[in-house]
Amino acid sequence: MPPLPQWAHARAVIREVGLRDGLQSIATVLPTDQKIEWIRAAHEAGQREIEVGSFVPARLLPQLADTAELVEYAKTLPDLFVSVLVPNLKGAERALEAQADLMLVPLSASEAHSLANLRKTPEEVVAEVARMRAARDASGAKTLIEGGIGTAFGCTLQGRVEPAQVLRCMQSLLDAGADRVSLADTVGYANPAAVRALFEAAREIAAERLWCAHFHDTRGLALANVYAALEAGLTRFDATLGGIGGCPHAPGASGNAASEDLAFMLADMDIDTGIEIERLLALRARVGQWLAGETLHGTLWRAGLPKTFRSASRSTNLYT
Amino acid sequence: MPPLPQWAHARAVIREVGLRDGLQSIATVLPTDQKIEWIRAAHEAGQREIEVGSFVPARLLPQLADTAELVEYAKTLPDLFVSVLVPNLKGAERALEAQADLMLVPLSASEAHSLANLRKTPEEVVAEVARMRAARDASGAKTLIEGGIGTAFGCTLQGRVEPAQVLRCMQSLLDAGADRVSLADTVGYANPAAVRALFEAAREIAAERLWCAHFHDTRGLALANVYAALEAGLTRFDATLGGIGGCPHAPGASGNAASEDLAFMLADMDIDTGIEIERLLALRARVGQWLAGETLHGTLWRAGLPKTFRSASRSTNLYT
Repeated sequence: MPPLPQWAHARAVIREVGLRDGLQSIATVLPTDQKIEWIRAAHEAGQREIEVGSFVPARLLPQLADTAELVEYAKTLPDLFVSVLVPNLKGAERALEAQADLMLVPLSASEAHSLANLRKTPEEVVAEVARMRAARDASGAKTLIEGGIGTAFGCTLQGRVEPAQVLRCMQSLLDAGADRVSLADTVGYANPAAVRALFEAAREIAAERLWCAHFHDTRGLALANVYAALEAGLTRFDATLGGIGGCPHAPGASGNAASEDLAFMLADMDIDTGIEIERLLALRARVGQWLAGETLHGTLWRAGLPKTFRSASRSTNLYT
Repeated sequence: MPPLPQWAHARAVIREVGLRDGLQSIATVLPTDQKIEWIRAAHEAGQREIEVGSFVPARLLPQLADTAELVEYAKTLPDLFVSVLVPNLKGAERALEAQADLMLVPLSASEAHSLANLRKTPEEVVAEVARMRAARDASGAKTLIEGGIGTAFGCTLQGRVEPAQVLRCMQSLLDAGADRVSLADTVGYANPAAVRALFEAAREIAAERLWCAHFHDTRGLALANVYAALEAGLTRFDATLGGIGGCPHAPGASGNAASEDLAFMLADMDIDTGIEIERLLALRARVGQWLAGETLHGTLWRAGLPKTFRSASRSTNLYT
């Protein structure tokens, strides 16, 4: 057999973003108690990074109005790294106050998407990140700032997004004081070749500050894209339990990479995520009941684990 | 940007196996007229390799009883490479008589699966391939013999299948006179790391006689596995329109890689398949009507082509 690739036997992190990217896209408003139960059970299943919500005005996203309470709860769980999304300085101040471990600031590399979704140009988002960095440093909080570059592989509004533009945004975010940067295929336009090329180029710029890859499964390529990103050296991937979420510009399409399917793919390739897949599948079933009427995605829940799959118990918790 | 990988801008072939691997797995018996229309429209959409059926006794697979007629029709289409599956010498004789371009002989690397499915050990299949080769050479026919090694990534009956056993089967098939060899993940157990490792090892043995990769989407990894096989140098992939097919040992699971999704992924990576995806989607809709009540799979039919996708018209037909 040929030598194993460099990433074999490595560790990887699945960042659960179902409570944010998932719940913000669906009609059901999940009660805080159930969200807390979700976070608790996800932690028990071995998940150690969770984006629990978003500090946006409650009138815009009533589904996420309880984010401060969720951060407070999540921070009580041992070794859980708690992220939130913040769209602006006001949100960042709430994240700092809540002592979130990380705040993700979305920036759209597509001008059209940026104006439509964030009502700001990419340059204005970069300027806001500089203000967040100043606020963070002044506060003494340890909250990391992640610049998340969306529509990195194309945009349903403007179409093509040039890789050079994505990389310019990345450099600007780093220059403005972002501690981490990420790339997101917001609308499900990425393919494995594009993923590998863009993430390799991004790594040249950001090195170890290149933090996370975020894929949607709109055209069935989320897991192929994760594999391509792994090859480019990424070891952290956003995903949502049951693949919930989606994009308002792609009606009927699948949502995010499904956490349980991704956990299986990685574990089956001997990449340790610390996740006990059976527990994650049990949690998926419960969340599915809470979200009755909403469409869940993914394949593993139906097909089951292969006979050849070594039980998750072999996975030592990667944080302890 | 980093240099493009070696396979960029290459060509690849999607071998349509829906008429065989797809139809043999479902209850509906498609009339010969509709199969002929399927073959005609697939050819019109740019498909140039089609497995039209299987020369097995009609009492075993009544769905495929018209294979000889389909070969005869398919051979009339310009530049269409016509394959059939043959389980034994008797089937091979029919394939030679029909002047199929290629006959695929299935061999299960798993002893348990081999005995359950083929009622032969792998060694007995190899011996049968030697007899087929003798018959082919004696007949003067140009029909190529492909040894298709199934359960190459594991088996629902016996569990693990050792890569060394798969490679031994491959060497034996070549020694017995197979012109081509292929690897199939019959039950949807493969992951991209395993695919890359096994296909790279297979390439060391078979070089350009390593012909095709066959993946099922049972756990959502068919396209990720195709990408990994591409990296290992493969340029020919089995797929079924609408992802029809499946495995009797994985009830409810998805079937094969969906031809239209695979055609999109490859085209979007600038790998030319000669297929006009819009036509393939139109054909999928018709076949879906013919197979009313059966489950079709795939994502592209629902999500549509991305705005950034360059029209299929750029794809020059790769055979003319």
